Amino acid sequence: MPRIVQKFGGTSVGDVERIKKVAERIRSVRDQGNELVVVVSARAGVTNELIARAKAVCAVPSERELDMLLAVGEQETIALVAMALHGLGVDAVSYTGAQAGIFTDKVHTKAKISAINAKPIDLDLKAGKVVIVAGFQGINEFGHITTLGRGGSDLTAIALAAALKADKCEIYTDVDGVYTADPRVVPNARKLNEISYDEMLELASSGSKVMQSRSVEFAKKYNVIFEVRSSFNYNPGTIVKEEVSYMEKVVVRGVAVDKDQAKLIVSNILDKPGSAARVFRALADANVMVDMIVQNVGRHGVANLTFTVPQGDSHRALKALEPVLDEIGGGQVAIHDHIAKLSVVGVGMRSHSGVAATLFQALAEAGINIELISTSEIKISIVIDLDRADEAARMAHQVFNLDQPGI
Amino acid sequence: MPRIVQKFGGTSVGDVERIKKVAERIRSVRDQGNELVVVVSARAGVTNELIARAKAVCAVPSERELDMLLAVGEQETIALVAMALHGLGVDAVSYTGAQAGIFTDKVHTKAKISAINAKPIDLDLKAGKVVIVAGFQGINEFGHITTLGRGGSDLTAIALAAALKADKCEIYTDVDGVYTADPRVVPNARKLNEISYDEMLELASSGSKVMQSRSVEFAKKYNVIFEVRSSFNYNPGTIVKEEVSYMEKVVVRGVAVDKDQAKLIVSNILDKPGSAARVFRALADANVMVDMIVQNVGRHGVANLTFTVPQGDSHRALKALEPVLDEIGGGQVAIHDHIAKLSVVGVGMRSHSGVAATLFQALAEAGINIELISTSEIKISIVIDLDRADEAARMAHQVFNLDQPGI
Repeated sequence: MPRIVQKFGGTSVGDVERIKKVAERIRSVRDQGNELVVVVSARAGVTNELIARAKAVCAVPSERELDMLLAVGEQETIALVAMALHGLGVDAVSYTGAQAGIFTDKVHTKAKISAINAKPIDLDLKAGKVVIVAGFQGINEFGHITTLGRGGSDLTAIALAAALKADKCEIYTDVDGVYTADPRVVPNARKLNEISYDEMLELASSGSKVMQSRSVEFAKKYNVIFEVRSSFNYNPGTIVKEEVSYMEKVVVRGVAVDKDQAKLIVSNILDKPGSAARVFRALADANVMVDMIVQNVGRHGVANLTFTVPQGDSHRALKALEPVLDEIGGGQVAIHDHIAKLSVVGVGMRSHSGVAATLFQALAEAGINIELISTSEIKISIVIDLDRADEAARMAHQVFNLDQPGI
Repeated sequence: MPRIVQKFGGTSVGDVERIKKVAERIRSVRDQGNELVVVVSARAGVTNELIARAKAVCAVPSERELDMLLAVGEQETIALVAMALHGLGVDAVSYTGAQAGIFTDKVHTKAKISAINAKPIDLDLKAGKVVIVAGFQGINEFGHITTLGRGGSDLTAIALAAALKADKCEIYTDVDGVYTADPRVVPNARKLNEISYDEMLELASSGSKVMQSRSVEFAKKYNVIFEVRSSFNYNPGTIVKEEVSYMEKVVVRGVAVDKDQAKLIVSNILDKPGSAARVFRALADANVMVDMIVQNVGRHGVANLTFTVPQGDSHRALKALEPVLDEIGGGQVAIHDHIAKLSVVGVGMRSHSGVAATLFQALAEAGINIELISTSEIKISIVIDLDRADEAARMAHQVFNLDQPGI
């Protein structure tokens, strides 16, 4: 019997009506003769309510207790989904993360999965039950409840698919799949039938909100093929897998825009070994996530170091840098936050030159100034003025013919 | 260091403000140099919300899944209480029922505690932590979450007090303690400083809502002395323990009124062996809780069987009896639900005759008709008209001098 792991996010199980809809969907897949494991998130809004209550009783809640608190959200959903299935005459049983044998390291609020004991689930599947598992949560070696951090439920689903040797893994969300660009920005954006892990990863880190990188990385590592699709319709979604040869013919797979970035420029740094290290050590200690980094050595042995961070981190970054400016030559720091990052992604770039040239020329013709450039093997990212970001995205989509299905 | 187990009910931890107040209370007890285990319930209202959601997705929710769902309520509270304590600088750690080693039988929604592994809590206490435990919940041999049924959090506290060999167990509630009668009905009702387990048990089964019988039974079995007191003030409460000699001098300890009863009369039953058994077997099969039972054999070999049930069960009882009426001689069933049960309770009755006479005479003088009488060693219960119940309670309180402190 084919074995399927499905994951439904918080919007898909947001209230009792949606939970009943999800249960009907599960029943039909089950009735088609599949073994089925369903991973669910907390109902949309519940996690935020719980966090608000936590902050009301304690300014800085302990991470162990936050995990204890937040795990409640998914535990509610699994019970309700199992009940809704019973109401439809489907034999179903719910599992918390701990009961599902999802063991993690000791790091609360962003634990990593260390092992999965899938035996109990395997037995229940063989006994004909639909198994409902709480996403986002696990248990550590002390028996304490841990949570997996953002995107944790996707990770639960993909990890279970690997551990259970599932034939299929379906990530249900509120979008139809992965698009060549955000359809709200680029009206003729096209849903992709397939995308490679690497492309998906670059898109995820480039502001495409479909999935967190870590789940895609996990899928790539364990070669779990998964499909991103909508829980609100029955359209096929986007299948994410290792690249296949015909993909090579497509140069660019998608365009992503990230408007949540700020650019920091540390100017007049003494150009000597250790300066950059000192800067990024200070940022890391302050828990600032740094994205693009560019350094230019200017004249007179001084350098400018430019990088981008999430907008919410920019002032924390500034504060973290103040104490080290003296050490690195008395430079100055400036924040520019009226910017956007535009990325074009595609495994085809590896063997095709000219992608950068095509992109830069199109932008130049439109008079859009490029403030920063950073490239990887399969991605080109640029920083431009925030006001021109959507226009640039449409233009990039056009010049790479992303509205045309690949050959 | 003295070891104390405290239990706070749903009203005491009803919202974040009350949780903070409870945390302050815990800190002060802790600062007086005590080891402290605190058992908490779900916030008032949460359990009902969860049940409503369960019923919205499934008419008859599975009991296993109900337990999975309801356990969420206490898990939220333990995390919030631990956080509130951290906010006050108190080292605290939360435990679910499973983590607290509370093992139960397999009966979902009303599991019985089968064993407690108190070692982890013991270690945390010795390490100087305040331990916050989710009441009402445990885990069975399959690792499934169970709940203990009504009054389950009290039971958790008393069972932990026994397992941890606590020096004191305090049940915090929204009343000041156990009263000689309900102060809303009998204005000069007096708070008792002490009461015996047996008296408390008879009061609990006679409509006094302070605690469920099973927790008191457990305390009696393991000789756990506990105090019932208010979480809204610092007044001493009522200490519940095995009877002591001076208690004997007090004849009657309290008066309880239960207005939630209905009386069923099965008339014209053939007076032959097995008739009563047939009736109560049918009621038991329909899960009807029967309280008082009285049978009178009349003339001509036919009998009347009268008993009381909770009002909500009366129509279920009627239905359950219909099929057996033929077998027992074609009797008829009538429901009277405009009644109340009045009970006077006291261990002193054992050695004092005349309690019944005093009570009956007082009621007779007031023209209150007694419809049913049932007695135990330390209790006399009567069924009277609902409209006269409060008056009868005040009268009983008066004739037994319950407004006077015992000698």
